[in-house]
Amino acid sequence: MSRIGVLGGMGPSATVDFMEKIIQLTPATRDQEHLPVIVANLPHVPDRSSAILGTGPDPLAALLAGIDLLNDIGVGVIAIPCNSSHHWYAQMAARSRAPLIHIAQSCVAAITHSLDGRPARVAVLATRGALASGFYQQALRARDIDFLVPDAATGQDHVDACIRAVKGGDMQAGAAAFERALQALAATGATAVIMGCTELPIAAEAAHATDHTAMTLVDSSLELARATVTFALDKGWNKPTWVS
Amino acid sequence: MSRIGVLGGMGPSATVDFMEKIIQLTPATRDQEHLPVIVANLPHVPDRSSAILGTGPDPLAALLAGIDLLNDIGVGVIAIPCNSSHHWYAQMAARSRAPLIHIAQSCVAAITHSLDGRPARVAVLATRGALASGFYQQALRARDIDFLVPDAATGQDHVDACIRAVKGGDMQAGAAAFERALQALAATGATAVIMGCTELPIAAEAAHATDHTAMTLVDSSLELARATVTFALDKGWNKPTWVS
Repeated sequence: MSRIGVLGGMGPSATVDFMEKIIQLTPATRDQEHLPVIVANLPHVPDRSSAILGTGPDPLAALLAGIDLLNDIGVGVIAIPCNSSHHWYAQMAARSRAPLIHIAQSCVAAITHSLDGRPARVAVLATRGALASGFYQQALRARDIDFLVPDAATGQDHVDACIRAVKGGDMQAGAAAFERALQALAATGATAVIMGCTELPIAAEAAHATDHTAMTLVDSSLELARATVTFALDKGWNKPTWVS
Repeated sequence: MSRIGVLGGMGPSATVDFMEKIIQLTPATRDQEHLPVIVANLPHVPDRSSAILGTGPDPLAALLAGIDLLNDIGVGVIAIPCNSSHHWYAQMAARSRAPLIHIAQSCVAAITHSLDGRPARVAVLATRGALASGFYQQALRARDIDFLVPDAATGQDHVDACIRAVKGGDMQAGAAAFERALQALAATGATAVIMGCTELPIAAEAAHATDHTAMTLVDSSLELARATVTFALDKGWNKPTWVS
């Protein structure tokens, strides 16, 4: 069971980005010092955001099939690099023998640290489904962090366009839409931005937004990777025992 | 069984690069049009090159455990983005219910096409183990393609250093070593270079070598991805049937 399980494909590029982050966060100088990871890249899971908004089919059966697959293989923890799917976190966690690391909990827990003690007003960028679900707002309220959710005037349309472009493989269009979303936030007084959809960090990197924005960008995918790698290193899964 | 299986982690970055190539080669505008892929990222498989050279432990048991794992999940084809591991191709193929796509066969088959009919003299860049195994030389001879294998004077030390650097996560050192390997080949009359180790294309990209070299670079990882995606699209695995 000394392996990380990743329920991925939502979307495929976000999963690749997440795997890359796991590698970069693992202290290793050769293959054998890395962490074993089983990735179920299942892109056919119905769109999570549409389902939450009541405009598309329910993905829960497909999500649970993925959870079952990873448990059947024998993984010791599961990470899901898709924020919107965490609308069904309780059902997936109840089904899984392996613990599930919650992407939004990991991300919000990192915020205080990311801001170096500066007072935060956090803009939550996510799919409309994830925002309607409300798990980010709940996690932020629980930590007493001031937040805002964009509306039409403050950039939600650009967030939607950005996510759609990255899922469609057009990283340059994604980057441009991400820039517009940041610009639209300027008037809100936001000091930090949660990239609460795993497509957004890909667009941010394509836009080199991490270098020039005045707002602190908090990357949900990176924070999930950090929590996952910490869990796995604590268990010693980087030590080559599974072969024996 | 309508899923691609990837036996990966050899090394981890090469597996991520391979997954990225699968995504880029798949015609898709949204998550649900992509191919389902199960990745067993098992970095603890003992070093393949050392084993072939008789200086390290045998990886066969670990390779077969990975093959079993993917077959147990139910994959319809297996790709292994590690050239040296193909020394044990026959044993893995005999063990697997799912067919195994051979990276070197896919790569050599692509060469004629890549060269647009120009006469080829192909330099094979690979680990010392893969070169000692000889499967690239065999595949090239079978197609009557003129080839050479670097020695100390023509860059094998730089190839070794490049692979080691990428596996250690130092892409800039890998890029520099790759450049030196190409320079050392200049006197050999090579018109094309097989990047016959899946770490090499990562270094080539970091060096932007694909843009400026006079030699055609043939990427074993890309050709394996192309063969794998072609196989899967032919079977219609991009159509969302597995959920139902």
